[in-house]
Amino acid sequence: MGGRLGGYSRAERQDASPSDDTGDGWRLVRQASAHGEAHDETLFALSDGWLGVRADFEERPGRSGGAFIADVYERKSIDYHERFPGFARATDTRMPAADGKHVQVRLGAQGYDLADGEILGCERALDLATGQLKRTTDWRLPGGEALRVTAERVACFRHPGLYPLRFTLESIDFAGPVALDATIATENHATAKSNDPRIGVEAAALPLIGWRGGANLAIAVQAMPSRGLVVLCGQTVRGGAAAAPERPGVLTARGELRPGARMTLEKFVAYEICAEDEAAIAEAANRLGDRLTAAAARGFDALAAEQAEELHAFWAAAEVCIAGEPALELALRLNLFHLRQSADPSGRHGLAVKGLTGEGYEGHVFWDAEIFMLPVLIHLQPDLARAHLEFRCRHLDGARAHAREMNFERGALYPWRTIGGAECSAYFPGGSAQIHINTAVARAIGLYLDATGDFQFLVDRAAEVLFETARIWLQAGFFDPRRDGGFFICGVTGPDEYTALVDNNFYTNLTARAHLKLARAIAERFEAEHPEAFAAMTSRIGLTAEERATWAAAAAAMHLPYDRSLGVHAQDDRFLTKPRFDLTAAAHRRPLLLHYHPLTLYRHQVCKQADAVLGLVLEGRDIPLEQKRRDFDYYEPITAHDSTLSATTFAVLAAEVNAPEAAMGFFRETTLVDLENLHDNTHHGAHMAAMAGSWLALVWGFAGLRIQSGRMTFKPTLPADFHGYSARMAWRGATFELSVRPDFAQYRLISGGPVEIEHEGERMVLEGPAPVRRPWGASAPLEAVIFDLDGVLTDTAQAHYRAWKRLADEIGAPFDAQANEQLKGVDRMTSLDILLARGGIDLAPRQRLALAERKNGYYRAEIADLGPGDLLPGARAALERTRAAGLGTALASASRNAPQIIAQLGIGDLLDAVVEVTPERRGKPAPDLFLAAAALVDAAPSRCLAVEDSIAGVAAIRAAGMTAIGVGDPAVLTEAQLTIQDLTHFQPRRPRQAN
Amino acid sequence: MGGRLGGYSRAERQDASPSDDTGDGWRLVRQASAHGEAHDETLFALSDGWLGVRADFEERPGRSGGAFIADVYERKSIDYHERFPGFARATDTRMPAADGKHVQVRLGAQGYDLADGEILGCERALDLATGQLKRTTDWRLPGGEALRVTAERVACFRHPGLYPLRFTLESIDFAGPVALDATIATENHATAKSNDPRIGVEAAALPLIGWRGGANLAIAVQAMPSRGLVVLCGQTVRGGAAAAPERPGVLTARGELRPGARMTLEKFVAYEICAEDEAAIAEAANRLGDRLTAAAARGFDALAAEQAEELHAFWAAAEVCIAGEPALELALRLNLFHLRQSADPSGRHGLAVKGLTGEGYEGHVFWDAEIFMLPVLIHLQPDLARAHLEFRCRHLDGARAHAREMNFERGALYPWRTIGGAECSAYFPGGSAQIHINTAVARAIGLYLDATGDFQFLVDRAAEVLFETARIWLQAGFFDPRRDGGFFICGVTGPDEYTALVDNNFYTNLTARAHLKLARAIAERFEAEHPEAFAAMTSRIGLTAEERATWAAAAAAMHLPYDRSLGVHAQDDRFLTKPRFDLTAAAHRRPLLLHYHPLTLYRHQVCKQADAVLGLVLEGRDIPLEQKRRDFDYYEPITAHDSTLSATTFAVLAAEVNAPEAAMGFFRETTLVDLENLHDNTHHGAHMAAMAGSWLALVWGFAGLRIQSGRMTFKPTLPADFHGYSARMAWRGATFELSVRPDFAQYRLISGGPVEIEHEGERMVLEGPAPVRRPWGASAPLEAVIFDLDGVLTDTAQAHYRAWKRLADEIGAPFDAQANEQLKGVDRMTSLDILLARGGIDLAPRQRLALAERKNGYYRAEIADLGPGDLLPGARAALERTRAAGLGTALASASRNAPQIIAQLGIGDLLDAVVEVTPERRGKPAPDLFLAAAALVDAAPSRCLAVEDSIAGVAAIRAAGMTAIGVGDPAVLTEAQLTIQDLTHFQPRRPRQAN
Repeated sequence: MGGRLGGYSRAERQDASPSDDTGDGWRLVRQASAHGEAHDETLFALSDGWLGVRADFEERPGRSGGAFIADVYERKSIDYHERFPGFARATDTRMPAADGKHVQVRLGAQGYDLADGEILGCERALDLATGQLKRTTDWRLPGGEALRVTAERVACFRHPGLYPLRFTLESIDFAGPVALDATIATENHATAKSNDPRIGVEAAALPLIGWRGGANLAIAVQAMPSRGLVVLCGQTVRGGAAAAPERPGVLTARGELRPGARMTLEKFVAYEICAEDEAAIAEAANRLGDRLTAAAARGFDALAAEQAEELHAFWAAAEVCIAGEPALELALRLNLFHLRQSADPSGRHGLAVKGLTGEGYEGHVFWDAEIFMLPVLIHLQPDLARAHLEFRCRHLDGARAHAREMNFERGALYPWRTIGGAECSAYFPGGSAQIHINTAVARAIGLYLDATGDFQFLVDRAAEVLFETARIWLQAGFFDPRRDGGFFICGVTGPDEYTALVDNNFYTNLTARAHLKLARAIAERFEAEHPEAFAAMTSRIGLTAEERATWAAAAAAMHLPYDRSLGVHAQDDRFLTKPRFDLTAAAHRRPLLLHYHPLTLYRHQVCKQADAVLGLVLEGRDIPLEQKRRDFDYYEPITAHDSTLSATTFAVLAAEVNAPEAAMGFFRETTLVDLENLHDNTHHGAHMAAMAGSWLALVWGFAGLRIQSGRMTFKPTLPADFHGYSARMAWRGATFELSVRPDFAQYRLISGGPVEIEHEGERMVLEGPAPVRRPWGASAPLEAVIFDLDGVLTDTAQAHYRAWKRLADEIGAPFDAQANEQLKGVDRMTSLDILLARGGIDLAPRQRLALAERKNGYYRAEIADLGPGDLLPGARAALERTRAAGLGTALASASRNAPQIIAQLGIGDLLDAVVEVTPERRGKPAPDLFLAAAALVDAAPSRCLAVEDSIAGVAAIRAAGMTAIGVGDPAVLTEAQLTIQDLTHFQPRRPRQAN
Repeated sequence: MGGRLGGYSRAERQDASPSDDTGDGWRLVRQASAHGEAHDETLFALSDGWLGVRADFEERPGRSGGAFIADVYERKSIDYHERFPGFARATDTRMPAADGKHVQVRLGAQGYDLADGEILGCERALDLATGQLKRTTDWRLPGGEALRVTAERVACFRHPGLYPLRFTLESIDFAGPVALDATIATENHATAKSNDPRIGVEAAALPLIGWRGGANLAIAVQAMPSRGLVVLCGQTVRGGAAAAPERPGVLTARGELRPGARMTLEKFVAYEICAEDEAAIAEAANRLGDRLTAAAARGFDALAAEQAEELHAFWAAAEVCIAGEPALELALRLNLFHLRQSADPSGRHGLAVKGLTGEGYEGHVFWDAEIFMLPVLIHLQPDLARAHLEFRCRHLDGARAHAREMNFERGALYPWRTIGGAECSAYFPGGSAQIHINTAVARAIGLYLDATGDFQFLVDRAAEVLFETARIWLQAGFFDPRRDGGFFICGVTGPDEYTALVDNNFYTNLTARAHLKLARAIAERFEAEHPEAFAAMTSRIGLTAEERATWAAAAAAMHLPYDRSLGVHAQDDRFLTKPRFDLTAAAHRRPLLLHYHPLTLYRHQVCKQADAVLGLVLEGRDIPLEQKRRDFDYYEPITAHDSTLSATTFAVLAAEVNAPEAAMGFFRETTLVDLENLHDNTHHGAHMAAMAGSWLALVWGFAGLRIQSGRMTFKPTLPADFHGYSARMAWRGATFELSVRPDFAQYRLISGGPVEIEHEGERMVLEGPAPVRRPWGASAPLEAVIFDLDGVLTDTAQAHYRAWKRLADEIGAPFDAQANEQLKGVDRMTSLDILLARGGIDLAPRQRLALAERKNGYYRAEIADLGPGDLLPGARAALERTRAAGLGTALASASRNAPQIIAQLGIGDLLDAVVEVTPERRGKPAPDLFLAAAALVDAAPSRCLAVEDSIAGVAAIRAAGMTAIGVGDPAVLTEAQLTIQDLTHFQPRRPRQAN
């Protein structure tokens, strides 16, 4: 498979793992003994998007497991000890349906039940390329004899609700009569309710209201009393099996075994839903019988082959490869397999947070669908992405009703969690207060339009959703004349659920701004292209031109909280004023939500998951890289990552801001979330958003994909652990493949086209099958050189030394050469702090500021007569040669006196940019000054060289993702890629020398 | 009664209401037909503090009603659909006990049940002076005959759990045999659960586990399964009645009636609690039998006389009188009667928010006890106040456990609502987040100590509570080095439940500061006076001197949010940045909590009740009156007063800041809350805090009582609607009476003494029976005269006119004499706004500031050559005469140029104070400048005259509570108490002339 579809031919693959030839990159194989059974049942679950079946043992009926169906849920009332208006009155709870996978094995004259035996060994193997699951279990009977069970199953994308299985019993040393009872389990043994709020109510079994059947047909009928519906689970056996009236639901095949011999049963299970009404049930039972008869006639192999074709088509559009990391590659493919399985094509059901793999979160659909799952589906299976959006459109009235519940007089507010369209959240501070879900739905619509160009879908259905959801913002927020007419949104909860009910959540306001802009733009296009339909729709919902104009005004005036003294975006208006939570002390009490009262968490700076950081990933295109880096550095240490949604987002931003180790760590976390059970609850179901997010971490993260102005833009990077990677994706009807290698990135059309993309700012059009290759990052030509000032271009070290010494003497702090060394490359206030700390002097902030000012006065006096003669050897020529090579030049000095010094040195006209030292910019070793310099000369950091003489400066350059040239002692500047004595021979070239 | 105990002799009373002689000031009489039955059942409920019995009909068993016992409650688990750590797992719910008040009347040969008849009329009369309730009901039988029932009851303060009743059946035109069945109702017909979160869970009946009894004795035994206890309700009949084995629990007396004849049954009911254990029940039944036999032997009249003695003693200590408002007087007495009834003297039970009058709020104890009920009890019944504090001491371990639930590692946090000591709040944003309850308990301890001097109680028990509760603040809050080391408390909910989970709630921080200071002070005294006990206790709870020192540091650094541009205290850090809620639009959706999702309320500036205002009342002693007035004016219009706690607090502050109409309105609201059923839920129980609060509104509000430095200080006022009022109160073992009349306030010792008090800043000691009289407020001597500048001392009107005219011409705004008139007495920015509005000119704030500056420049140029000659006639002499009269002089001008003008006029040395115009001070007609002036010369506003020439200025003077002298046309300055032509003859005197 790898060879057939892979972005790398077998020969090209640099990871010569022994499993390669055997196709193991596509097969997940696990020994049951090594893992929790319930965990594997989730991992190996099969689903067609409507029916999901967990991978429990066929021959061990009634032990855990479950079958989940998109249409099978119950509406249960929610009790509140104190209920307030608008609280959700009921919740939809996904209930396990009757499970038809079971085969009871009765052996010998005594009629041993195989399930009473001892398991000798068990292996599950899932072939991701074909979708076929095969389990082999060796049993020892209580009497000592051994048998092997081989159970094979597939889901059927082409026949939702049908699943075929083949059950083979092989005798190792047993001889005697055998009966195989094909049964349907109607009891629920899913995980019971616990104190974990993520699980929800206990899912009792649906009431069994009767059995139907006939020759070789058994049907269990279960009621969904709250909804007036029933679900029918039917089974039949290929070749026929006998029904016994006294054992309803059981079809029995009999045989005789001896050592080495086998007995095989092909069983077909299918489901129907209908009204709880005798005639309807009879009709559904007939349909079910017909479907099962037809399926049995075709047989297991034929249906499995069909599913293999489906999977083949899927992977042709969706294949990902990671050279050098076979385990991650397999995990990523497993994740995409589950994502594909979770999507129902009918448009009637949303992408549930656990797919159909378990009872966690009651089977609900959250914003995870739009923010994490859908952005992957639009590239891999745009029709399935659209089906999910149709589900949202279908429930627009429910969202309108929810908006009224929340006292919004106009528009629609999507429920925080739902199955059937109504709000199902019982804890509003972490539920209904997350009104940013509206921006998620809007964003998904915009993304779908970008990726498919399908504007007709918006005209027909989705634009109304976009507009109705946008209307909430003008009611939730307000223009405040007391604060320059800014637009503020109070009383919301952002994505971070360890903080609740805040004012001006950065993520909410940022995405609401995007929502309002999108709604406004779509309205303009809609009105221009389909004036009559637009007039009819807006008139129906009472949307005026004036209201739409206010969208633009609100977007323009949107308040985005920012803390100048920290230089970071504030998660909300108050977040940064709270004390930090001690995550280290709480290391053994994770996730925090299971150990701390919400108030304790709300009272502290601690994030469950990416919040502001997610905003930067989704809507950060106009925010400088330098700023994102500061935000990343601030928020990462205070984030508990207790939500599986967190790692994806942090992986993407870490890759963007050049924190490669962090990026790789988060990528592993999101990719292995379920395979390695990293959050210890995979047994409740797979984490679909994190699974999908692993693709985002790869493609948005390492490959740097963003959609900008309706176009895909890439900024590829290659993690050190990878030899290369590739991913396929769809865009406006075409499919193409991106491959990233150490020395180039390749874009290749697989089908369709042309496709316009951008690679590191260069627009290109893919047409025809010929791949387009481009160098990337460190292999791409240089664009600029960034210089430090002190010690690189000139030496004001003596001036600094004398100024500090004078101050130190005045305040009685010890000062010597060693102290002076510590201050090199360090900004003024930090230097002063070092000096004071050495002197054991404790001063108030105001006094410290005064001392720093005093020192600066001394320093400025010292440097007052610097001149061109004070340039270090070769400095001027180096600048001139850099210019001559066609490269930008910039100065990144922590000195606030740099402009004056440059002027005195006479090199002002050789520098394209001089970074301003501002309160928010951190000193070295933080990368801020270098990132700011790169931005000023409009160069990607990876295309910059930077020259420094201090350890902190070199560290700052590396942190910025630039190539560091150290001026000085190689033994000291060990992190620099190259050290030189001085600038005498400094000669950069655009096509960069190897580094 | 009024004559016997009242603060006014009969002759003195100025309200010669006809009911006076009949003692109606002590009798509440209501015709049942006029009111809801359930409402009257609450109003006329009788209680001994342990057992409360609602006033339902004896002869109509099973129709609503109920008996509530402090010890009878069940612990019920709370279901959460999503439960997080620390959420209360269970709630204590007060359950109605078996109700023994019933007498079933069977009549005639057919055995009519009287309860099937028709009510012809019904009157209830409660004699507050004796505690006796008498109901008279006329019935018509289905057969047409009429009978009268007279039912009399009393509670027995001396015999908690016993209640005697006398039931008299009088025939009007019935003749025949009669059977009176004394019965015990064991079914619960209390109001069912609704969507009103204030009611709580449905209170099903306690399970009846059997009947006991014997000759003339019937006992119902009900279980409290969750607590392993039973409650026994027993009855007996005076003179004996027959028990029939087939009708357990029924004692029957038989007789014969004819028209005009009567039949009387004296019935005695009592309760016992014991373990659910056969031996214990048998023993308790014996005890019960003995108690009932003894009670029956004494008879109804003897027990009623005893209770009358108790009430007499109570009123001797607690009597209040309001001359001129008999309805309010009666209501206030009813309120105190209920407050007395609600208090259990045993120290085992707290003061429940509904007393024992209904099932509202599940019978829970809230902070209402300490903040509203206890401050009254310490004056009226200090022992009962102490009993409540003993209840808190008893549950200190529960508070410690709750603190751990909320992740506080040390100290104790009292539950927001409780019966048995554990947190029972199921909605933490409006419950456990209100950690200010700790300050309420601490404050109550301090108040008790102030009022009684009982330091031994602190040494023995309460100091530990004070210290353990104080410890929470150092954990909930933190010192923030980023904000000058201030102390901040994040993530709390203040008293206003329409705002939740905020940072730095003003009330919480203000009262936490007081708590920390008190704890520190008590610790110092404790350590000094009882060093060994102190060492033992602090060592046991691990409280170090260092931690106590940090209390002081935190108190000193406590952040109190304040908005300079509005000039008001901010309810919390974000409150004032939110949009205002439109209370007018929501006028028909009250209380808001039953109509709006909490998020909608949280998102807006809207208060359920006094929050910052309560802080000002409790801890506002160092806050200038001017500031309190601004806060009152800001918060009153945004407060929904949906809590019955609100009116009390607003009444007190309104009286303090001289808003007499508002004060009277709020006084009526809190006083009539239950009598008039103002919150439409008195049927769920009486509002004990609001009832107690009516005394606070009178004594804290109108009489201005505050406790300062352990001493009572009074600043009496007299509402226009009252002819006078009086109140008795206890202080350190003494009882004295305050009476306020139009011309003086009188303080008179009733018993004990001496008592040191302060009247309007004058300390005095009450000794002996002779009353001390002092003039108050407007009848007291003048202290200062406050002058406006423009138009009073000098006329710069022309200079203003020319400056405004010049500006208006420049910007093209129309300007004429009429416009000029509008600007008189109005501050600069407001004047500019008026000018711009007239010109239809819309400008940004910055541009407006620039224009105001420009006008001021023109004006300063105009006034540059003012001199002494520009003083208005008599101005200088008036100032000199004022000085000569020994009065302070101050200037209250809205002009920022006033200091310059005064200097130029040469009168600087004749003014003791000149008010500075600051951004927070509002211009006239707000009273800020005048209040500030009075504060600068240290004069009570009521003792100031102020002189003004403008309508707005006179209004400001009146709003400040000063006497207004208008200079100008009496037809224009209609609100001035006196107008003069100019200052020529102005001659103020200390002993003020009548005004």
